[in-house]
Amino acid sequence: MTTRGYTASKDDLQARLRRIEGQVRGIERMVTDDRYCIDVLTQISAVQAALDKVALGLLDGHVRHCVAEGAHEGKSEEMSTELMAAVGRLMRRG
Amino acid sequence: MTTRGYTASKDDLQARLRRIEGQVRGIERMVTDDRYCIDVLTQISAVQAALDKVALGLLDGHVRHCVAEGAHEGKSEEMSTELMAAVGRLMRRG
Amino acid sequence: MTTRGYTASKDDLQARLRRIEGQVRGIERMVTDDRYCIDVLTQISAVQAALDKVALGLLDGHVRHCVAEGAHEGKSEEMSTELMAAVGRLMRRG
Amino acid sequence: MTTRGYTASKDDLQARLRRIEGQVRGIERMVTDDRYCIDVLTQISAVQAALDKVALGLLDGHVRHCVAEGAHEGKSEEMSTELMAAVGRLMRRG
Repeated sequence: MTTRGYTASKDDLQARLRRIEGQVRGIERMVTDDRYCIDVLTQISAVQAALDKVALGLLDGHVRHCVAEGAHEGKSEEMSTELMAAVGRLMRRG
Repeated sequence: MTTRGYTASKDDLQARLRRIEGQVRGIERMVTDDRYCIDVLTQISAVQAALDKVALGLLDGHVRHCVAEGAHEGKSEEMSTELMAAVGRLMRRG
Repeated sequence: MTTRGYTASKDDLQARLRRIEGQVRGIERMVTDDRYCIDVLTQISAVQAALDKVALGLLDGHVRHCVAEGAHEGKSEEMSTELMAAVGRLMRRG
Repeated sequence: MTTRGYTASKDDLQARLRRIEGQVRGIERMVTDDRYCIDVLTQISAVQAALDKVALGLLDGHVRHCVAEGAHEGKSEEMSTELMAAVGRLMRRG
């Protein structure tokens, strides 16, 4: 098994993702039940906030583990480019 | 059945949400399979972009349908406050 | 003078914009003084937050004043399209 | 003079910041001239996009220079914490 930045907190990460999956299913039900648009939007914002938390946690683990390891293997430039591309996507949201 | 801003495009909205749910499940599997952090982050950014599209579509329908209707019922102020709160949450992502 | 959604709070809006201009000039000075990157980034985030507040205030005034007026003039569709384009740009930050 | 991640591109960074300062002043003039809210909002989104570019450039230089240097001085943990706080602020916009 390859050790990743999130390996130590894998269970927590999987639990968060399952919760987010459940929230999205909940939004589907709200639409099926013709719930008010604003209430549906409120739930979408909640999912966005939860995804941001997961993303920041993954990034944190990646910086502390993979980027640090890459530095020892002389791969700093490559790792920095990869990291910055990920940060750019998160800031632009896609 | 109460008519909502998204009623006319309900099937499309539900299909998008099911796809997003599937994407989140896919991210869970990536974590189970110890996939590289950056690859997982890339998928999270994709889900956020898809959610933003759904949110903007909902907001658009709400503005054209519910806010317009509210104006005829003399509820412009109340609808504007509600709309702006939703826009604020989407901009702050949660 | 054309009345805008921000006309009633024009002085406050101009004061905020002048403050933001001053903050940007302050960031220029930090760079001239070779200040630590993270400190410069912290100030940029502060300017972003201030700009978001100004933008939400403008949008709020526009929804309550211009969009409402447009509805009476039968221009709801056009105003909604314009409003949603502005919200989309703010969410994508550009 | 302390060498920073942006030192090599300092002139470019200062030119960008001066342009952004000018853009903000331009927005002030638009408000003074009672320009249409949506046009003012469009310029604010342009300033935010320009600031995001400056921020990503600063972060990139910081990761490649300061974080890499910190790793050699055994300060990886501290630098990672600082970096992630900056990324969090940029994602939350303030």
